[in-house]
Amino acid sequence: MSDQLDVDAVLAALTLEEKASLSLGSDIWHTAPIERLGVESIMVSDGPHGLRAQFEQQTDNVGLGDSVPATCFPTAAGLASSWNRTLLRQVGEAVARECLRWQVSVLLGPGVNMKRSPLCGRNFEYLSEDPYLAGELATALVQGVQSQGIGTSLKHFAANNQETDRMRVDAEVDQRTLREIYLPAFEKVVKTARPWTVMCAYNKINGSYGSEHHQLLTEILRDEWGFDGLVVSDWGAVHDRVASLAAGLDLEMPPVLGHSDVAVVEAVRAGTLDEKLLDRTVRRVLDLVAKSRPARQDEHTVDQAEQHAFARVAARESAVLLKNDGNLLPLDPAATTRVLVVGELARTPRYQGAGSSQVNPTRVDIPLEELRALAGDAITIDYAPGYRLDEPTVDPDLRDEAVRMAQSADVVLAFVGLPDAAESEGFDRTDIDLPANQTELLAQLAEQTDRIAVLIAGGSVVEVASWQRHAATIMECWLSGQAAGGAVADLIFGVANPSGKLAETLPIRLQDNSSYLNFPGGDGTVRYGEGVFIGYRGYDKSELAVSYPFGHGLSYTTFAIDGLEVSTTGSIADGDLAVTVAVTVTNTGDRAGAEVVQVYVGDRQSAVPRPLRELKAFDKIALDPGESGTVELRLDERAFAFWSTRFDRWLVESGDFEITVGSSSRDHAASTVITIEAPRVAVPINREATLAEWLADPAARAVLQRQPKVATILQHAEPTMIKMVEQMPVSTIAGFGFAGFGPADLDRFLTEMEAE
Amino acid sequence: MSDQLDVDAVLAALTLEEKASLSLGSDIWHTAPIERLGVESIMVSDGPHGLRAQFEQQTDNVGLGDSVPATCFPTAAGLASSWNRTLLRQVGEAVARECLRWQVSVLLGPGVNMKRSPLCGRNFEYLSEDPYLAGELATALVQGVQSQGIGTSLKHFAANNQETDRMRVDAEVDQRTLREIYLPAFEKVVKTARPWTVMCAYNKINGSYGSEHHQLLTEILRDEWGFDGLVVSDWGAVHDRVASLAAGLDLEMPPVLGHSDVAVVEAVRAGTLDEKLLDRTVRRVLDLVAKSRPARQDEHTVDQAEQHAFARVAARESAVLLKNDGNLLPLDPAATTRVLVVGELARTPRYQGAGSSQVNPTRVDIPLEELRALAGDAITIDYAPGYRLDEPTVDPDLRDEAVRMAQSADVVLAFVGLPDAAESEGFDRTDIDLPANQTELLAQLAEQTDRIAVLIAGGSVVEVASWQRHAATIMECWLSGQAAGGAVADLIFGVANPSGKLAETLPIRLQDNSSYLNFPGGDGTVRYGEGVFIGYRGYDKSELAVSYPFGHGLSYTTFAIDGLEVSTTGSIADGDLAVTVAVTVTNTGDRAGAEVVQVYVGDRQSAVPRPLRELKAFDKIALDPGESGTVELRLDERAFAFWSTRFDRWLVESGDFEITVGSSSRDHAASTVITIEAPRVAVPINREATLAEWLADPAARAVLQRQPKVATILQHAEPTMIKMVEQMPVSTIAGFGFAGFGPADLDRFLTEMEAE
Repeated sequence: MSDQLDVDAVLAALTLEEKASLSLGSDIWHTAPIERLGVESIMVSDGPHGLRAQFEQQTDNVGLGDSVPATCFPTAAGLASSWNRTLLRQVGEAVARECLRWQVSVLLGPGVNMKRSPLCGRNFEYLSEDPYLAGELATALVQGVQSQGIGTSLKHFAANNQETDRMRVDAEVDQRTLREIYLPAFEKVVKTARPWTVMCAYNKINGSYGSEHHQLLTEILRDEWGFDGLVVSDWGAVHDRVASLAAGLDLEMPPVLGHSDVAVVEAVRAGTLDEKLLDRTVRRVLDLVAKSRPARQDEHTVDQAEQHAFARVAARESAVLLKNDGNLLPLDPAATTRVLVVGELARTPRYQGAGSSQVNPTRVDIPLEELRALAGDAITIDYAPGYRLDEPTVDPDLRDEAVRMAQSADVVLAFVGLPDAAESEGFDRTDIDLPANQTELLAQLAEQTDRIAVLIAGGSVVEVASWQRHAATIMECWLSGQAAGGAVADLIFGVANPSGKLAETLPIRLQDNSSYLNFPGGDGTVRYGEGVFIGYRGYDKSELAVSYPFGHGLSYTTFAIDGLEVSTTGSIADGDLAVTVAVTVTNTGDRAGAEVVQVYVGDRQSAVPRPLRELKAFDKIALDPGESGTVELRLDERAFAFWSTRFDRWLVESGDFEITVGSSSRDHAASTVITIEAPRVAVPINREATLAEWLADPAARAVLQRQPKVATILQHAEPTMIKMVEQMPVSTIAGFGFAGFGPADLDRFLTEMEAE
Repeated sequence: MSDQLDVDAVLAALTLEEKASLSLGSDIWHTAPIERLGVESIMVSDGPHGLRAQFEQQTDNVGLGDSVPATCFPTAAGLASSWNRTLLRQVGEAVARECLRWQVSVLLGPGVNMKRSPLCGRNFEYLSEDPYLAGELATALVQGVQSQGIGTSLKHFAANNQETDRMRVDAEVDQRTLREIYLPAFEKVVKTARPWTVMCAYNKINGSYGSEHHQLLTEILRDEWGFDGLVVSDWGAVHDRVASLAAGLDLEMPPVLGHSDVAVVEAVRAGTLDEKLLDRTVRRVLDLVAKSRPARQDEHTVDQAEQHAFARVAARESAVLLKNDGNLLPLDPAATTRVLVVGELARTPRYQGAGSSQVNPTRVDIPLEELRALAGDAITIDYAPGYRLDEPTVDPDLRDEAVRMAQSADVVLAFVGLPDAAESEGFDRTDIDLPANQTELLAQLAEQTDRIAVLIAGGSVVEVASWQRHAATIMECWLSGQAAGGAVADLIFGVANPSGKLAETLPIRLQDNSSYLNFPGGDGTVRYGEGVFIGYRGYDKSELAVSYPFGHGLSYTTFAIDGLEVSTTGSIADGDLAVTVAVTVTNTGDRAGAEVVQVYVGDRQSAVPRPLRELKAFDKIALDPGESGTVELRLDERAFAFWSTRFDRWLVESGDFEITVGSSSRDHAASTVITIEAPRVAVPINREATLAEWLADPAARAVLQRQPKVATILQHAEPTMIKMVEQMPVSTIAGFGFAGFGPADLDRFLTEMEAE
């Protein structure tokens, strides 16, 4: 294998059949080789929070069997809670090292679909309910992986936000919502990190399959965003190879050998598929092979102990301390002699989800063992399983044993969470409740002691409102990989200080979520009826209380955010607007820790209903006790824009914008209002324009004012009448013949307008 | 004018220009005459809760100037609260008598648009948030009017549910929601009462103007529902006369003379408009003229005193007693000596809304005067205005005077409500609050006495949650016409017993309404994102507490509903399913009164998300103290059906349905579950069908079972795997080559299926 692949030369030498063969894989994990021209097959493997590389031929061919051992890092739900771009980049590098070891050229991830509903079974694989946060963190992950010469596959493009009927369901989502919510994370990663590949979604979007979606795969992805990589199908997402190729899908996986390739050849011969489109696709496959070669030149080894140690660091940063009454955590070794660990999940941890992302871990930390290892001899750690994981009903013996043991404990560490059966790729949850045997246990434990710390494991939010009064402390630990057990021990004993922030809101009730009336749809469609108001955008707009807001997360220390300064340079007219937001953050407690400064922007007056505030910048800063630091963040034009369906473009309207800085979406430590000037976008002055729109347009107003009848229109009517008439399209006014202004007058005005 | 118009003969004799002239009016209120052929012009006038006939030439030509005196009956918001079909019919007859008097041939109403949001400025003109209730009541009203030989115009067809940008806004509403929520009231009236005309909406529906909507005006209205009357434009709704004529719009109003007629003639001459379409339209106009003749043969007089007395009866039935703690109302003359009436609205009543429905009343009852007239000499009725109507801020002098006078009153009657400026045709509300000066006054009054009865006037719901603790009694009186003042006096003194029920939910917060995130939209569109879950369907689905539920209304007596019996005859397969629901209602109190028995149906298991319960039958029964009566109601197939977008038809799925009977949507006095058998509707067995769907289809299963590979598919995988695979379209399974089942196998199976 040479270091160089002469793509032009190969393309010129390929037969039609060879070209067609390159537009699909050779088997479930490999691209097709063309040996006579020195084009090798390359391997792609599932991810992205660890490598799932399969080398045994699978009997089922769906590819969910055994994979080689690999480090299982925290799932996306955990990593996103770190709000730490550097960490994500390092995780990317670490996973890539294992790809290098196994000669895997493309890691199939990350997933940047939005957590539209807490019910989506695959939420643990997705980053956030906020597109900005997801886009920033995925960018870092992709950069980390690709810095090692390994490709990524940004998935699932797009609006793949549920598992119910996932292979077919038609996501009905309006263009504004698509642009503001479901596409920006893809856009950010594509433009910034240039992923080698993008993976199409299974589902339909507004009537077309993701695999055949020309608007998404070609017009938006390539023409608008400048993507020059390869589009691969989700596994089994192709329904019509020729139609998908024409839409912009380059590589079908797994290949339907002897079928898809034949169809492509026949279509070219029949003239129904332009061979230039096939050439374009083949060039992208060859480019991918060429890009992947350097990483496969040498053998690589991986230090598994080092990988595991880093997985522990990542898991620590993934945890979110929701509440911590009386500073129950961290445990004070001097004041603690007897700890009761409760919960089957403390010895049978759940640390990743099922499906294509499921890693075969190199080892797994058991929380109970890690706690005992850290506690030392001075502290006794007792254990009671308390409940069964394989059924939701209360086991009275297990419960009573735990309750009895709690009587003599200084503190109870209750490990709760969702069992495997509750969430997975392939199906959605139907509620967000913890199993009844766990909440019942918490209630009983609370009758014995008020010193209970609850540690939650799960891939998506659970309801806490009904039971959280039983816990002094709650830490959401997500599914944080094979070292999650060690990480939670570190956090409990204060070896590490929690610094995670919620990347998804914890609602009081599932019914409060704005997608509730439209999830998961039915009859083959799901309407994204809530529009742009997903996640915190919905709770905020509806003024709903939540259990814990987006962006929330406590520390063992405290922080103050103040000294907000906002300055503006450039302008929208010149295309160089830059708003700088600076605050001072001070660690006001007595421990080293890290705070995430979050900047939200809200446009109070707009032609369309907009969220009250949206995350537009953030950074994480580590500070020693008493230390202060300045965080300076930059907002560009997009931070103030909405997608106008009327003008089919991003649009900023002149006016006041509120800049809010805080440690969560509902903690408004500091805020200010700035005024943005933006060029007026002219409303089309035509028959459908209202009188108010004509009058607001300087040119149209000038033409109108030459006509005495127009003045008469507004003189004739009472104030409420003017309110009515101004809202009328001018063609309607002409139709009424209001004040003698008839169709002929309208025609004349339109002619004059064209002449202006 | 002869009694007969030979439509065929006239049609044959008309010139093209004459035909075109008939497709528009001759002026704002008249159809075009063809004098040489004996076709007279007929007059249409606004309504429908009273006649708004204009005979003076209007200077503004929009037609909102003075009209002849007419009885103002309760607006639709009031009438609907009666839940009394007989009353609606009588109101129709009464209004028609005034049409007869003025030789008006068509009354432009009723409006059966849904109250999608409490904010719609025109809600007072609409009946309900429930399509069944609106359809039943509008049917009665239309029957009443048309029984007198006067035509109606069912409006605004369709999805005209807001005033903001009402002339242009595109209502994006899915087909299922259109069929289940926004069309059924129209469908019911068209099929049952055969209105002479239907009026198209101003707005767009899914991209097409109501005036050019072929699906609505021709496919659904005529082809499906069998409408054989005339479609008239809303005033000024036509944008393109030729396109609207082709879509099925027969009469343009007001006419754009010299423009629209010319365009029609030119289009026929140019061959772009089939003259047969024009003939069809002209025939409908001539039919309308013919139908209207009998009523214009004679002169008619109206007994205005009788009309007014009946308006008082109608207003009494429109009131809804929301709460009545300690039976504060009716006032006991023996125990009452000093009554304080508070509120500007008690002497300056608001009893109708502004816009096209605004009637020039023959007289107006003043509540304060009517109360004094009824009270007799033994009771002193004092009065304090308490607040100003023309501004929302507190006038301290007025407030303090009222509060001071309350100290010596036995009871305070507080008249509150929305001022004119708060609601009207032409704009929407932006909140549902009472003016601050009124709620502030109530809080202050409550510090003096707990004997406060609040009487609300307004065209749509107001927020009560924040202040209702100040009132022992609340009666929602709506805008109930010129005799509302007498009616409220009757109710306060117990001359009449309230029997109204809410036709719209009183939510705790506006934000709880399911349309909240999507009302009134922006950028030219409004997405009906909540789908079928409007009104109580939304509050119920989201399990939200409300201030007062749909269907709620108290009486001065009490009722018991019991003895539920449900029996079924016929079947869906035979097209004759009839479910009879019978209950016994007993007046358990000591006054004569009337109760509304409401039947709700809920389908707990469905292929699509359905409302928890929907109103499907109701009846009102009057009972003397101690008297019992049986109410027997009939449910047909439609009561159990949903609109399947997959099959483009009404569909009943076999299974259990809950039948709930009660005195409101949340009062479940009695309920039972019945099982309905319905023929299985075959899912298309094609490449897109899932494996689960193939296996559920007997024929497909048989074909599949002949193939040993299929058994292998299901044997090979674990349970969670089967769950995943069953959801896959068979083409996807074939694509994976799962268990050797490839595209060739699939092709063979499809061929065999076709042969079955």
